[in-house]
Amino acid sequence: MSGFSDPLTTCKACNEIYRADHLIKHIVEVPDALSNQEIYKVICDNEVTCPECGGALSEIYEFNLMFKTNIGPGGKLQGYLRPETAQGMFINFQRLLRYFRDHLPFGAVQIGKSFRNEISPRQGVIRLREFTQAEAEIFIDPRNKTHPKFGEIKDLVLKLYSQAAQERGEPDTMTVGEAVERGVIAHQILGYYVARTYQFLMAVGVSSGSMRFRQHKSDEMAHYAADCWDAEVLLDRLGWIEIVGIADRTDYDLKAHMAQSKVSLKVMVPYDKPIKRQKLVVKPDFKALGPKFKAKSKAVGDALKALTPEDIRGDMIKVQLDGEQIEVDKSLVSFETAEEEIRGEEVVPHVIEPSFGIDRIIYTVLDHSFYEDAVDGEARSVLKFLPGVAPIEVAILPLMDRSELVAPARKILEDLRSRGIRTDYDTSGSIGRRYRRNDEVGTPYDVTVDYETLEKGTVTVRDRDSMRQIKVRVEDMVCTLEGLLSGAKKFEKAGVMVEIHPT
Amino acid sequence: MSGFSDPLTTCKACNEIYRADHLIKHIVEVPDALSNQEIYKVICDNEVTCPECGGALSEIYEFNLMFKTNIGPGGKLQGYLRPETAQGMFINFQRLLRYFRDHLPFGAVQIGKSFRNEISPRQGVIRLREFTQAEAEIFIDPRNKTHPKFGEIKDLVLKLYSQAAQERGEPDTMTVGEAVERGVIAHQILGYYVARTYQFLMAVGVSSGSMRFRQHKSDEMAHYAADCWDAEVLLDRLGWIEIVGIADRTDYDLKAHMAQSKVSLKVMVPYDKPIKRQKLVVKPDFKALGPKFKAKSKAVGDALKALTPEDIRGDMIKVQLDGEQIEVDKSLVSFETAEEEIRGEEVVPHVIEPSFGIDRIIYTVLDHSFYEDAVDGEARSVLKFLPGVAPIEVAILPLMDRSELVAPARKILEDLRSRGIRTDYDTSGSIGRRYRRNDEVGTPYDVTVDYETLEKGTVTVRDRDSMRQIKVRVEDMVCTLEGLLSGAKKFEKAGVMVEIHPT
Repeated sequence: MSGFSDPLTTCKACNEIYRADHLIKHIVEVPDALSNQEIYKVICDNEVTCPECGGALSEIYEFNLMFKTNIGPGGKLQGYLRPETAQGMFINFQRLLRYFRDHLPFGAVQIGKSFRNEISPRQGVIRLREFTQAEAEIFIDPRNKTHPKFGEIKDLVLKLYSQAAQERGEPDTMTVGEAVERGVIAHQILGYYVARTYQFLMAVGVSSGSMRFRQHKSDEMAHYAADCWDAEVLLDRLGWIEIVGIADRTDYDLKAHMAQSKVSLKVMVPYDKPIKRQKLVVKPDFKALGPKFKAKSKAVGDALKALTPEDIRGDMIKVQLDGEQIEVDKSLVSFETAEEEIRGEEVVPHVIEPSFGIDRIIYTVLDHSFYEDAVDGEARSVLKFLPGVAPIEVAILPLMDRSELVAPARKILEDLRSRGIRTDYDTSGSIGRRYRRNDEVGTPYDVTVDYETLEKGTVTVRDRDSMRQIKVRVEDMVCTLEGLLSGAKKFEKAGVMVEIHPT
Repeated sequence: MSGFSDPLTTCKACNEIYRADHLIKHIVEVPDALSNQEIYKVICDNEVTCPECGGALSEIYEFNLMFKTNIGPGGKLQGYLRPETAQGMFINFQRLLRYFRDHLPFGAVQIGKSFRNEISPRQGVIRLREFTQAEAEIFIDPRNKTHPKFGEIKDLVLKLYSQAAQERGEPDTMTVGEAVERGVIAHQILGYYVARTYQFLMAVGVSSGSMRFRQHKSDEMAHYAADCWDAEVLLDRLGWIEIVGIADRTDYDLKAHMAQSKVSLKVMVPYDKPIKRQKLVVKPDFKALGPKFKAKSKAVGDALKALTPEDIRGDMIKVQLDGEQIEVDKSLVSFETAEEEIRGEEVVPHVIEPSFGIDRIIYTVLDHSFYEDAVDGEARSVLKFLPGVAPIEVAILPLMDRSELVAPARKILEDLRSRGIRTDYDTSGSIGRRYRRNDEVGTPYDVTVDYETLEKGTVTVRDRDSMRQIKVRVEDMVCTLEGLLSGAKKFEKAGVMVEIHPT
């Protein structure tokens, strides 16, 4: 199956169109691995029919997932919307190589919209026709797949659902270092990006208990890929879903671009020390060639210079000149050997491609952040966003909408905003109702301005998750909140704990 | 002319296609203001011919700038790529209104790609078929176009090329406050966003001496717009180019969406105090209506209740019931007046739309940042990027590529990176050459690690623009560079000045 097309089938009775591979998911575990003929055979053998009307299904045909359009007036130029962000980085390979001054490894990242003409977009943001993708292409020396910073992540413990583990039906838990050592993950560089992906997903609030890295099965992996791992998450209504893919695509893409563009995308990798080698040097006797070859003598001489040791074995030397074979007596040529310095060798880089589905990651963060508990017998909905991803980091809540409280609350709001903290200001409804509202949108901290603010110069800071409250002096508040948001301060130690029933 | 189409003309001889309005730019100052017939008249009257072959030009026809594509299989559903980012925010108007709890004013921002099928993309990134746009839609109460924070920006001095100033050919220089007071800018809110746009452009490095705000001429402005100003910049090779547009589009967009969607996009704006009003209450005598109108009596009664004072002037009252006119004797109805409380009134918000062409702004920053000077008789190319937009904020340069210098340089690199400072590390070539290279890519500061670093614990920090150098202790360096980059510290006072010839 080529990269960006889907196998479709049409109901012969009602003309409804389906993804053929989706219709056999309950029969075949990895329909991706089947050819169109094989899919059709599964459909026939299992008597799969139209889910809408029960009609018979057509043979499988390919549907191009790329949206087609016309460029410029007259409709002469056809164009396609990009189905992934990766291409631009391959197109710019030579420019990137120059930017990195011809040294491997180097990488580029890209984030933006990709477009795929899915026949049945569904499951909310999981399968969209226009989605946000972030990809990196890391170009490496194919002979060295170690990573200098591997030590930083080697002790990270991951849940790895390798090909072997999938056979058993149970993921393994091991360190990245162990995984690479035991050959579960192909090499250090891939292990490094798997680990960094894990750290990123943790930093945005994906639940480590509801995620795993699944290795592509051999029949699912592209033929050129050396190894490929998907970060998968368990979602409440959707089961296990892929949100990141990390592949060693070897030299497949660059070779394909070389073949189409006829441009060399090789990189000269210098040896640590240049290698010295004996080399044959052919020295034509131009004085003797002149009278014999006249106007051609320069060209004959140049052809002689390009000869290899194999070419000069006999007495007569043969050179090709514009298709004509010319014989030159060996006496017209002298030979020397010279020492040649080989600086390095040319390689086609391999590429490691981590590809992030941003919409799916955002959905996962929402799914994994949501929980319900009860406060005073009433349900409380909470999004337990980490401060780094919370749309509102701090809500400023004057106890009542009165000028004597609004003025200091507004002042606090401006102080926090000027420090770049994402804030909201809310005076409507009871304080309990405002707490609930902020819990629901995932605000980590609420600052309540009340009459103690006027009398004692303190505000109440409430922690969303524990619902506990501390008193903090107004002048310490910016610093305290910055510490809480960055994780440098613990809530219990950031102020004077208020001994009340948490709300 | 409708929003997203261009007037084209085709050469009858060679079939080349042109933007008709572009062909008459040297004849008519604002071709945008002309109809297609008028453009064609200008072409005929002035004997404008094909710039390629001199052939005669066709009549003007409209070319849709939106890229068309098909969605889903079968090609039944047509779709278009968005020609601007704005639409999404209008589509989401009701959701935004709810998010802001039904209060005006509120706004939304959007950044992303927009697509226009330009017939002749040109001038580098100035006219692209796929470009990056950032737009805001600020929805306001049409009866109140003041801005609470106007005081913060009212003293900002701007170069304003108003309609009147354009008549004279010379922009005015005045404060935003003055401009609004004198009616040059229509109102405070527009003035506020013009001022904020100016501050943003200054913060990214647009040169204030090479920019102005130009008001749309009355024949250039959309008929519905209350006022519209473009931020224009003077570019080295391209003259004056629009990079931002700021328009008061009144209620045009929301009314257009209301008309198409048949959904009310009005907002209830409450009065400070509810207004009390006398209201007529019609009380039908259902006991008397029953025998007279039988099955219809309920419907007749309801129709009577909906009557206004005007409807009940005569002796007989007429009501419409399913197209039928029914007469009701006044004796069958009694009347009362009651006090009604009017909470507020419904308005269609006006919208202020600042629209930023991001590619053009980036090009402008490059254009306005570039200069050449001479150092020791050799040309030096510099991009004088502000730290906030410099791709590299600090370059770490070990004087030589030796392990005793590389180790402390790498340590400094890691320290700066861990603080989120964008750094580069460069050991190749002489120190002078590395300074030149960093000047060329706009790096504000170079840190040189040399043998004094080992002996005295200091590094040299070099300022790109003055080329002067200071010595800073390694342990103070992160703090010093953060101060320099944020503007909190002056270079001359940030360390011990090195009294050498600047390089």
